[in-house]
Amino acid sequence: MAVSRRTSRDIRSESRLDVLHVLLSQGETTRNEIARTTGLSPATVATVVGELLVEGIVVETKVTVGRIGRPTATLAMNPDRGRVVGIDVAETYVRAELFDTALTQIALVDVERDEHLLDPDSVVEAIGSALDRVLEQGGVDRRDVLGVGVSLPGLVQAPAGVSVLVPNWTWHTVELDRLRERVGLPLVIDNPLKVIATAELWLGRGRSHSSLVTVNLGTGVGAAIVLEGRILRGATNLAGEWGHSLLALDGRGCRCGRRGCVEAYVGAPGIRQTLREIAPDHPLLALDSQRDFIEAMAGAADGPEHDAAVDGTIARTAWYLGSALADLVAVVNPEVVTLTGWTAWALGDRLLPATREHLRDQAPGTAGADVELGVSTIGGSTVSTGIAVIALERFLADAGLLTSRTPIAL
Amino acid sequence: MAVSRRTSRDIRSESRLDVLHVLLSQGETTRNEIARTTGLSPATVATVVGELLVEGIVVETKVTVGRIGRPTATLAMNPDRGRVVGIDVAETYVRAELFDTALTQIALVDVERDEHLLDPDSVVEAIGSALDRVLEQGGVDRRDVLGVGVSLPGLVQAPAGVSVLVPNWTWHTVELDRLRERVGLPLVIDNPLKVIATAELWLGRGRSHSSLVTVNLGTGVGAAIVLEGRILRGATNLAGEWGHSLLALDGRGCRCGRRGCVEAYVGAPGIRQTLREIAPDHPLLALDSQRDFIEAMAGAADGPEHDAAVDGTIARTAWYLGSALADLVAVVNPEVVTLTGWTAWALGDRLLPATREHLRDQAPGTAGADVELGVSTIGGSTVSTGIAVIALERFLADAGLLTSRTPIAL
Repeated sequence: MAVSRRTSRDIRSESRLDVLHVLLSQGETTRNEIARTTGLSPATVATVVGELLVEGIVVETKVTVGRIGRPTATLAMNPDRGRVVGIDVAETYVRAELFDTALTQIALVDVERDEHLLDPDSVVEAIGSALDRVLEQGGVDRRDVLGVGVSLPGLVQAPAGVSVLVPNWTWHTVELDRLRERVGLPLVIDNPLKVIATAELWLGRGRSHSSLVTVNLGTGVGAAIVLEGRILRGATNLAGEWGHSLLALDGRGCRCGRRGCVEAYVGAPGIRQTLREIAPDHPLLALDSQRDFIEAMAGAADGPEHDAAVDGTIARTAWYLGSALADLVAVVNPEVVTLTGWTAWALGDRLLPATREHLRDQAPGTAGADVELGVSTIGGSTVSTGIAVIALERFLADAGLLTSRTPIAL
Repeated sequence: MAVSRRTSRDIRSESRLDVLHVLLSQGETTRNEIARTTGLSPATVATVVGELLVEGIVVETKVTVGRIGRPTATLAMNPDRGRVVGIDVAETYVRAELFDTALTQIALVDVERDEHLLDPDSVVEAIGSALDRVLEQGGVDRRDVLGVGVSLPGLVQAPAGVSVLVPNWTWHTVELDRLRERVGLPLVIDNPLKVIATAELWLGRGRSHSSLVTVNLGTGVGAAIVLEGRILRGATNLAGEWGHSLLALDGRGCRCGRRGCVEAYVGAPGIRQTLREIAPDHPLLALDSQRDFIEAMAGAADGPEHDAAVDGTIARTAWYLGSALADLVAVVNPEVVTLTGWTAWALGDRLLPATREHLRDQAPGTAGADVELGVSTIGGSTVSTGIAVIALERFLADAGLLTSRTPIAL
């Protein structure tokens, strides 16, 4: 591949993206505030905003006339430019969220799924029917939908477009084509990690930090890396697969086929395995659902009776997590690491103190002490919101309003 | 830290850096060729080149008048703008190289060092005397020296400016001040990894690829990451410390104090340890110098007699290296990985086939198969050349000719 150098088109595009970023994250703003936040010149901001006004992406909501100087217009995203849908496909559920172009939620549909039923046909149908239902609930005509984003668990790899890593859930081009046909609207597909990072970047810590890593802790485990305000996708959209980097050479078997992956220790099934090693007959091991198991762990840790096996499992998990995060900090050296996903939400507060200590002890120099580690402040719909943002970005790119050297998604 | 957004000053600076990159890597070039290579507009190139001509950084070497159109000027770096020195401080030697501003070597001085003598005083004196000698050999007046770059092994961390990780070699501000005083010229200090990446970026695979990782294999082990044509420094210049990420939880002790680091397996002492585990009485274990040991390993592998212990050590090292590279590829997903450092030069060809196979098997999706893995094509003076480039960049920055959001070095 040739070196792709920054072109003036890229620069114009990046200025647009920076302006949109401020508009989406701040709600209402002014040209002056955009210039202050982005560091762009007032002239550039004026040009970009002018183009976005013509395209109907942005509207002037009110004009304040002061005693001195020119009138100041308040700007906002135009909510009525169209609709976008974000669909979060997890192993246990499908969530579809409908937004206007200012990213205000219009409708939400949750469909529970049998986590053991993973054949592509049933997943495609679950996505399609969640989409139909959310559009119906929102009273939206399909012609007003600018784009649909679908977050698929596992790897979403460019250019092959294959989602793997979930057992029995290997999607090849044929399944993606079937999905595209069922959706019948402009479609983007991405991996939950890239999606979560997009949400963190636009709506979370990315508003105040330019280099951050978001770590997702659920059944699967992964990291999304944001550098200089942009998501690191890598050569084929696979960057951030920290969950399948080694914690222990020749260690526990991982469902990806490798041995000793981080996921095999800090993914929900890995945490269950740790408890099994400490207390093979522990009653919590009888729980079938992974999410129930993690929530029961949190309940037991908080409960009135001291449960040494549960405490030991949490301590061991913090050691695994701190060690694995130290590796990520050693390689990327970010300002902030946020934890997200249902394991983080349930166990984060209990894991954090010891994890922070292990990270500090094990990362090179003072990198571990310098990094801010916390649970993400973005709530439960991170994935459906993030993939809707990506669908919106894709619409803007297809409309010639953005270009990017890095692929937005598939 | 506030989000640092791209300013118009940054963009002008990046355009300058892109133009200088073409000039330094291609020797002679034209405005048209620069525009083609960088993707910058001809007008921008003309402006940037105009400024560099005024500053005396660039010269027109000849003007070709064709029958049609305007005359074409050939451009080159002005070698007589001044001199820069790059000093590579390793545990076993100090190398000082003197360059003109077109990066042509003028003089070279190699000083062998006792690898067991690592107190800061003796290192500062070795650097100072290597500098004096190379300037004398080159017949250069100190007033003509625009900058001196020193590559120090271990971590060079911003803003603390401490080099650690080499036992008995912890440099605090006081040692850095002493070095600054002894050198008595504008000084930049950086870590060999960042330096090697700079060389790879300006003179090696960075000329044709925008995302690459350079892995250094010597006594220490580390990675330098180039993304979108820029070196990833991280929040405090510690990015790329892959050598101290985990290969094996609770594994071999590493000299950094952690257990199970990559370096403890694929650094030269780690390779020796592997041989010791396979054949505790092997005669090569008697060699005192690490470099002699690695070269003797290469000799034995090539020799007429089959040495099962040496072959086994190389096979095991390839497994360790392939596994550890798979982690790096999982997190960063680069287009290219190059191996450098004396272990790579001596054993690279023997390690590569099996390493490539392990990498392909263990990295997520097809990331391991897609990445190009090879020994770096830049020769032995990579470090002294790279740190001289950084000294030159720093001079340009201090002269107001470059700015960068990311610190160039200390």
